[in-house]
Amino acid sequence: MSLLIKNGNIVTHDQAYRADILCDNGVITTIENSILETSSMEVIDAEGLLVMPGGIDPHTHMQLPFMGTVAIDDFESGTKAALAGGTTTIIDFVIPNPQQRILDAYHQWREWAEKSACDYSFHVAITWWANSVYQDMKTLVEQYGVNSFKHFMAYKNAIMATDEMMIASFNRCLELGAIPTVHAENGELVYHLQQSLLERGITGPEAHPSSRPPIVESEAANRAITIAAAIGSPIYIVHISAKQTVDAIQYAQNNGHRVYGECLAVHLTMDDSVYQNTNWEYAAAHVMSPPFRPKVHQQALWNGLTSGTLHTTATDHCAFCDEQKAMGKEDFTKIPNGVSSVEERLTLLWNEGVNKGRITANEFVALTSTNSAKIFNIYPQKGAIQIGSDADFVLWDQNRNKKISLKTQKSKVDFNIFEGMKVTGIPVCTILAGKVAYRDGDVIAQAGDGRYINRDTFAPYYSATKLKNQINQAKAVDRK
Amino acid sequence: MSLLIKNGNIVTHDQAYRADILCDNGVITTIENSILETSSMEVIDAEGLLVMPGGIDPHTHMQLPFMGTVAIDDFESGTKAALAGGTTTIIDFVIPNPQQRILDAYHQWREWAEKSACDYSFHVAITWWANSVYQDMKTLVEQYGVNSFKHFMAYKNAIMATDEMMIASFNRCLELGAIPTVHAENGELVYHLQQSLLERGITGPEAHPSSRPPIVESEAANRAITIAAAIGSPIYIVHISAKQTVDAIQYAQNNGHRVYGECLAVHLTMDDSVYQNTNWEYAAAHVMSPPFRPKVHQQALWNGLTSGTLHTTATDHCAFCDEQKAMGKEDFTKIPNGVSSVEERLTLLWNEGVNKGRITANEFVALTSTNSAKIFNIYPQKGAIQIGSDADFVLWDQNRNKKISLKTQKSKVDFNIFEGMKVTGIPVCTILAGKVAYRDGDVIAQAGDGRYINRDTFAPYYSATKLKNQINQAKAVDRK
Amino acid sequence: MSLLIKNGNIVTHDQAYRADILCDNGVITTIENSILETSSMEVIDAEGLLVMPGGIDPHTHMQLPFMGTVAIDDFESGTKAALAGGTTTIIDFVIPNPQQRILDAYHQWREWAEKSACDYSFHVAITWWANSVYQDMKTLVEQYGVNSFKHFMAYKNAIMATDEMMIASFNRCLELGAIPTVHAENGELVYHLQQSLLERGITGPEAHPSSRPPIVESEAANRAITIAAAIGSPIYIVHISAKQTVDAIQYAQNNGHRVYGECLAVHLTMDDSVYQNTNWEYAAAHVMSPPFRPKVHQQALWNGLTSGTLHTTATDHCAFCDEQKAMGKEDFTKIPNGVSSVEERLTLLWNEGVNKGRITANEFVALTSTNSAKIFNIYPQKGAIQIGSDADFVLWDQNRNKKISLKTQKSKVDFNIFEGMKVTGIPVCTILAGKVAYRDGDVIAQAGDGRYINRDTFAPYYSATKLKNQINQAKAVDRK
Amino acid sequence: MSLLIKNGNIVTHDQAYRADILCDNGVITTIENSILETSSMEVIDAEGLLVMPGGIDPHTHMQLPFMGTVAIDDFESGTKAALAGGTTTIIDFVIPNPQQRILDAYHQWREWAEKSACDYSFHVAITWWANSVYQDMKTLVEQYGVNSFKHFMAYKNAIMATDEMMIASFNRCLELGAIPTVHAENGELVYHLQQSLLERGITGPEAHPSSRPPIVESEAANRAITIAAAIGSPIYIVHISAKQTVDAIQYAQNNGHRVYGECLAVHLTMDDSVYQNTNWEYAAAHVMSPPFRPKVHQQALWNGLTSGTLHTTATDHCAFCDEQKAMGKEDFTKIPNGVSSVEERLTLLWNEGVNKGRITANEFVALTSTNSAKIFNIYPQKGAIQIGSDADFVLWDQNRNKKISLKTQKSKVDFNIFEGMKVTGIPVCTILAGKVAYRDGDVIAQAGDGRYINRDTFAPYYSATKLKNQINQAKAVDRK
Repeated sequence: MSLLIKNGNIVTHDQAYRADILCDNGVITTIENSILETSSMEVIDAEGLLVMPGGIDPHTHMQLPFMGTVAIDDFESGTKAALAGGTTTIIDFVIPNPQQRILDAYHQWREWAEKSACDYSFHVAITWWANSVYQDMKTLVEQYGVNSFKHFMAYKNAIMATDEMMIASFNRCLELGAIPTVHAENGELVYHLQQSLLERGITGPEAHPSSRPPIVESEAANRAITIAAAIGSPIYIVHISAKQTVDAIQYAQNNGHRVYGECLAVHLTMDDSVYQNTNWEYAAAHVMSPPFRPKVHQQALWNGLTSGTLHTTATDHCAFCDEQKAMGKEDFTKIPNGVSSVEERLTLLWNEGVNKGRITANEFVALTSTNSAKIFNIYPQKGAIQIGSDADFVLWDQNRNKKISLKTQKSKVDFNIFEGMKVTGIPVCTILAGKVAYRDGDVIAQAGDGRYINRDTFAPYYSATKLKNQINQAKAVDRK
Repeated sequence: MSLLIKNGNIVTHDQAYRADILCDNGVITTIENSILETSSMEVIDAEGLLVMPGGIDPHTHMQLPFMGTVAIDDFESGTKAALAGGTTTIIDFVIPNPQQRILDAYHQWREWAEKSACDYSFHVAITWWANSVYQDMKTLVEQYGVNSFKHFMAYKNAIMATDEMMIASFNRCLELGAIPTVHAENGELVYHLQQSLLERGITGPEAHPSSRPPIVESEAANRAITIAAAIGSPIYIVHISAKQTVDAIQYAQNNGHRVYGECLAVHLTMDDSVYQNTNWEYAAAHVMSPPFRPKVHQQALWNGLTSGTLHTTATDHCAFCDEQKAMGKEDFTKIPNGVSSVEERLTLLWNEGVNKGRITANEFVALTSTNSAKIFNIYPQKGAIQIGSDADFVLWDQNRNKKISLKTQKSKVDFNIFEGMKVTGIPVCTILAGKVAYRDGDVIAQAGDGRYINRDTFAPYYSATKLKNQINQAKAVDRK
Repeated sequence: MSLLIKNGNIVTHDQAYRADILCDNGVITTIENSILETSSMEVIDAEGLLVMPGGIDPHTHMQLPFMGTVAIDDFESGTKAALAGGTTTIIDFVIPNPQQRILDAYHQWREWAEKSACDYSFHVAITWWANSVYQDMKTLVEQYGVNSFKHFMAYKNAIMATDEMMIASFNRCLELGAIPTVHAENGELVYHLQQSLLERGITGPEAHPSSRPPIVESEAANRAITIAAAIGSPIYIVHISAKQTVDAIQYAQNNGHRVYGECLAVHLTMDDSVYQNTNWEYAAAHVMSPPFRPKVHQQALWNGLTSGTLHTTATDHCAFCDEQKAMGKEDFTKIPNGVSSVEERLTLLWNEGVNKGRITANEFVALTSTNSAKIFNIYPQKGAIQIGSDADFVLWDQNRNKKISLKTQKSKVDFNIFEGMKVTGIPVCTILAGKVAYRDGDVIAQAGDGRYINRDTFAPYYSATKLKNQINQAKAVDRK
Repeated sequence: MSLLIKNGNIVTHDQAYRADILCDNGVITTIENSILETSSMEVIDAEGLLVMPGGIDPHTHMQLPFMGTVAIDDFESGTKAALAGGTTTIIDFVIPNPQQRILDAYHQWREWAEKSACDYSFHVAITWWANSVYQDMKTLVEQYGVNSFKHFMAYKNAIMATDEMMIASFNRCLELGAIPTVHAENGELVYHLQQSLLERGITGPEAHPSSRPPIVESEAANRAITIAAAIGSPIYIVHISAKQTVDAIQYAQNNGHRVYGECLAVHLTMDDSVYQNTNWEYAAAHVMSPPFRPKVHQQALWNGLTSGTLHTTATDHCAFCDEQKAMGKEDFTKIPNGVSSVEERLTLLWNEGVNKGRITANEFVALTSTNSAKIFNIYPQKGAIQIGSDADFVLWDQNRNKKISLKTQKSKVDFNIFEGMKVTGIPVCTILAGKVAYRDGDVIAQAGDGRYINRDTFAPYYSATKLKNQINQAKAVDRK
């Protein structure tokens, strides 16, 4: 059955106009001023609504085994929450145990993800290094549509990537046309600060931000960028939370390097005062890495987004219940890291960004969808409204208000960090592959409705990294 | 008659794909994998060529009366040169004499421009201030499709705008939804340095760059940005030539201000050594303001373009012959300022940008066409390849070589500053409004083929300037 | 009679050691581990105290005729307050009315200052330009020991200096070996913002900071620096209050320019929340230009001081009583600008700087005394503790507490903006020219005890400005 | 016997005046306008000369065992070369083999250094980590006058310090009041680039700079600064050669961190074109790490020195003969790293700095002597001309010319990288501890004349690091 979206105001990353959209077989087939409806069409009247490309969340962790437990939102509940929030595609992470074949881990995650209700794809983390890793990267790229590999610079004694590993892996990425991504925090320094805080008897969640100050993040970002720049590779930095990191990225961009930056809806909208809350559960519920920051960093992130220094917004959705958080009751370093926001990302961005005049509606689309599609090379299949693109949409009511609450959320987690926040501008209907997946509070999509998205290598920006490789620039002097 | 472009590789500012394009009545009507040709169609086989949106040059000065003479390229020869270079739209400048009604000047320019062979529009310069100027700005905006006003911060004792004038004019622009633009050089300082150099007996073209050092430019840019930022207006800075100016723009963007930056093909590709040439004519031929800069600035401009700090490329095409330049034989301050490059811009950008791995082909389109269209609010009429857009194209042969020369150029000027430069990647065919306007060395378009382009106000970025206005942020304290 | 200071811990800008100091005829004659006291000596036991060079306040306005009234602290009360605070030298300002011969104004101020209780010198403001100004500058330099000239970039329609004036005056300074100084605020923009605020009906002191946002200051600073840099002159910027200005200065220093920066004790310690106070008198009492800033700027100023970007601390002491402030009751632009702090500067710096670990005791001396002496070329006569230096000291008790209050202050003003602030580290005795001028709450010095200080031209830093002059770098090309 | 220096112009880091100086027992005992000479005095007539504190070179490597050979200048020849150049104190490095007790290494170096002709002290390198290192650091500080420890972030598989080691060592330094120093280059990246270059067949000295690009240095500097900043320690970075590193240091200083920077005379005056020389021996003679850089970096270093971002100049003197350099004939990574300049540093600084108007004579003293004395806490014993200071002087003839040459140098090395360079401003006499050590081409001091200099801990700047320690700032939240 076809789907006809009538009377909507289409808003893309760089245009806005009124038109009807017809979808068939999961893709957009016609965009015209007025399309006549027929009986074979399901019709949605989008009068008064904005019709935008479905959100892409390039950073989620559904049912992640982490810190001795497993994230409470599995691929079903997590992706349903995504759809409820206007997001139609997530890029989750395969995180192999060190020594585990990364290909094996990949297959494990693929199996877990089969019940996804929205579309999905995977970054694969490089948590150790061996010849098998080198080989498997090629297999993943060539046979499984993976074009990005993640490196955790934190989490010492677990999955932390050393400089040596990153050099090897970034080089491999460059050969394969994949993009390296990093979680930028200096793991050695985090570990030292954690131990020092515990030694001083500061064991609660308030110690968490002290153990991961902004410079711990910007240092790592700068290091990863340096490695990428030296070998001539582009790089993508996840969940940037600190002004110093924005500055480091910009400095590199000013020197001609291709650095892409992501920030999270939570870092854009909440500050670190939450860790001082005298209720342990409340404070612990906000523990994630990087931590929330003082307000001055929020403005820096917004400015980074509007100046073009940063490119995408994500959630790092990784939900843990009170009971799970309580594992760190005596030791903040044992609190499972993560918060939930896959459902709130778009409305937060609209409420704080568009409504406050920080970003335009076009930029909203670019930051929630199109830019991720471009960087991870699935544009214009995703992130666009044009003939042939996937028929993924969010229908947006700019004027509708909502109070965010645990009671109405779709995520399984038992704490909502935005509880009681009033927002204006919310998704009223989400369409995935030409079918209504969410409408007016109800998720209609089923487990398994989501499809795995292959991503091709050598994204367009690869053609502009020639000048940066130190080795390629070098030439032997003839001394005969 | 329809025009069918077959087998081309379409490249826009953010996509690349193979398709056929059908044009009717000057606009694009169909884009499909394969369009069947009919007898009513003129067919162009673009096999092996890139099909890109026609170039937009947002900064030209055809037949400008300036410094006691008139620029040699009139609206006919200049626009034909533009078409030969792949540019299908120029935005020229109406520059009233101080005390001249700006509306009168506008009409004068419109008359001159009737013989244009490519499409054109006008920025209007604010060279003085009075109530009539305030009124005429509204008329121009509402009745004549003008949405940008220019301010010369240099040229003391002539058309220089003071801070007071800029404050008044920027405010008026903000009310009307137009964008203020500036030529950023501190005119007082330029004047002082010129006099000092003349007093010291340095009268040749080599004095020109000394009289306009980079900080003279960055100071003015920073000042104009500050005025715009204080009142909450966006701003566009023309012909940025210096690293310091790029830094100033970026600093403002980092603080959340909407600043748009333009740079010229000549500043991206040539350096200030030309002024040291012992041949006076050669040196004088390169005299323009701002002057060419040491090489380190070129790299800063390229980095500014790729980092998103700068947005457009232009030419400031303002051609003067040897004889005209000779007016300044004894006094460099009397050398008519200007060089010719409307014909070479695209090929220079491709040769130095794409071929050297600095920019991607998509970025080439953005920088030569799409971004100007967006900023000056004629997107997607211009700068796009999509249904309904004007059928303006440049067909590009990436592999074709050419040696730039006076002998083959279309401009009337008698000196080509790029003489002998070999470039790879050239326009082989330019299409304006669905008709072939240039092909293989021949300009086919006629005087008068160009149309005047109205530009609407309140471009999308206007919605994101709310936070910046000092006055709007202020609130009275209740002290009753 | 000689003065012997025994057992003190001498702290200078770069040393700290225990020694006795003998003073004769107003200068230091002996510094030794232990000096035997004789009956002809007055002895001060400085056991447990720090003995530091007397403070130099390079920015005060005693009995200034300004905005229709006269600052309430005259040269007697103001300098007594200075002594009570540990300051032994002030550099005040001669501010001619436009069209007044600057030499005449100078003589007027000299007459007013004869009753000073501490040493004093004068910057002379260039408020207009004419040949007489050009001539008088030379006379002031050669015959009256003036080596610095001030330029107000704000106060439109009053004493505002245009770019043209600054270019002329800075050049003259350079010829004479004097240093130009500027009050950096864009007066045109301030005027516009003031009028806009009044038009919107925001007439109270809360409008004051909105009319002078940080960028209004940094813009002017950057402009003045640019003028100085272009002609190869050093420059000194007074009362820097904003992070953006610190950044602008540093940017210039990074490009090799000699820029000196001053900040005020009040800007280092108080923020702009005072203007929101619902008590009009309270809010108005804090009106000065530049205004107090949000807290983030304070940290930037401290960092500027420790990183070497900024060099001196001052007060801009310009005291107005409630009754005077009330002149602006209906219109904030008529509130006389100025606050009082000549008495509190040192203790504020110690309390917030040394006690909080921001600056060292040596840096305290540098920032309150030595650096001003060096920049204004009276070092080591002032700002030093060495044989031959003026015997000006402040004896400091690091451990003594005090609550600042109107009740105990020496200034005549009827409002103390620091009322109730507790400070640790206070001056217990001030010595001027070898005589006790203040001790334990009592000012002992009399009107007229202060001497006029001549300042020589061509301070040492003048030798390092060669490279910067655009004109000197220019050379004619031989085209014969 | 006493030494009387008559008629000289004394120049210190912040003063200049004419006076006579009397020295007894190695220290300065009298400074007066005119001191009467007696028969017991040796008299030096310094008429027309500048009398400045003897140079301190905080970075030398005499007779260093390194890369399979030993630096050719031993503590005798190297220190005699130092004296010939006006340097009276060196701070050399104890570099233990990994696993060697650092105390043992220290004693070995002390023994080697007994033949020094000038004064000397030692930084001790932390090349591995163990409890013995932790203990020995205390012994060195408390019993042997060591107050600085060095960390090599380069030289993988040899003496490279990991982040984990630096964290441990910097913390230990902080406890002890010593200052950590680093050689900042990312050793992993250098290793990778070296291997890649060799694989590509680029084996000559021209590969050296390609294997150590500027960002490899700035990355490491930023990382070391971050570690220091996180724990609240000051830090000193040796031999900064790149603009990017200057920027990184300044960024940290702007955030309130105490970072001290050193640069080398060679990096200030020579560029990387030397590596392109077709004569292998010539190119190899310039191989040191970090390598020489493109010219733009030189200006950045000079600006860093004048803006206060950088503080000291040194040489990294480490001389290897042609025969030694030839060890790397087939593989540039085996060329012993090091050049000789201990003899030329002062004259280079004067010639390029003072003569060209970049720095003042006072700054020259600060940069060649006083600042090192302050940072390494031997001021005012060294680096000063005042009563009680060591009688170490360089007598400087500003007008004397010289052509630098292998023929006249004192170093044992068989190649002078400055061969043929003409300099104006040279040392004509060097005085160590009140005795003439060098005069007019002849070194008079003998092996063993130099004394070991103890350096005390907790330099004054230590008092201003309170605010920076993440742990100290943390406080537990009361959740009872």
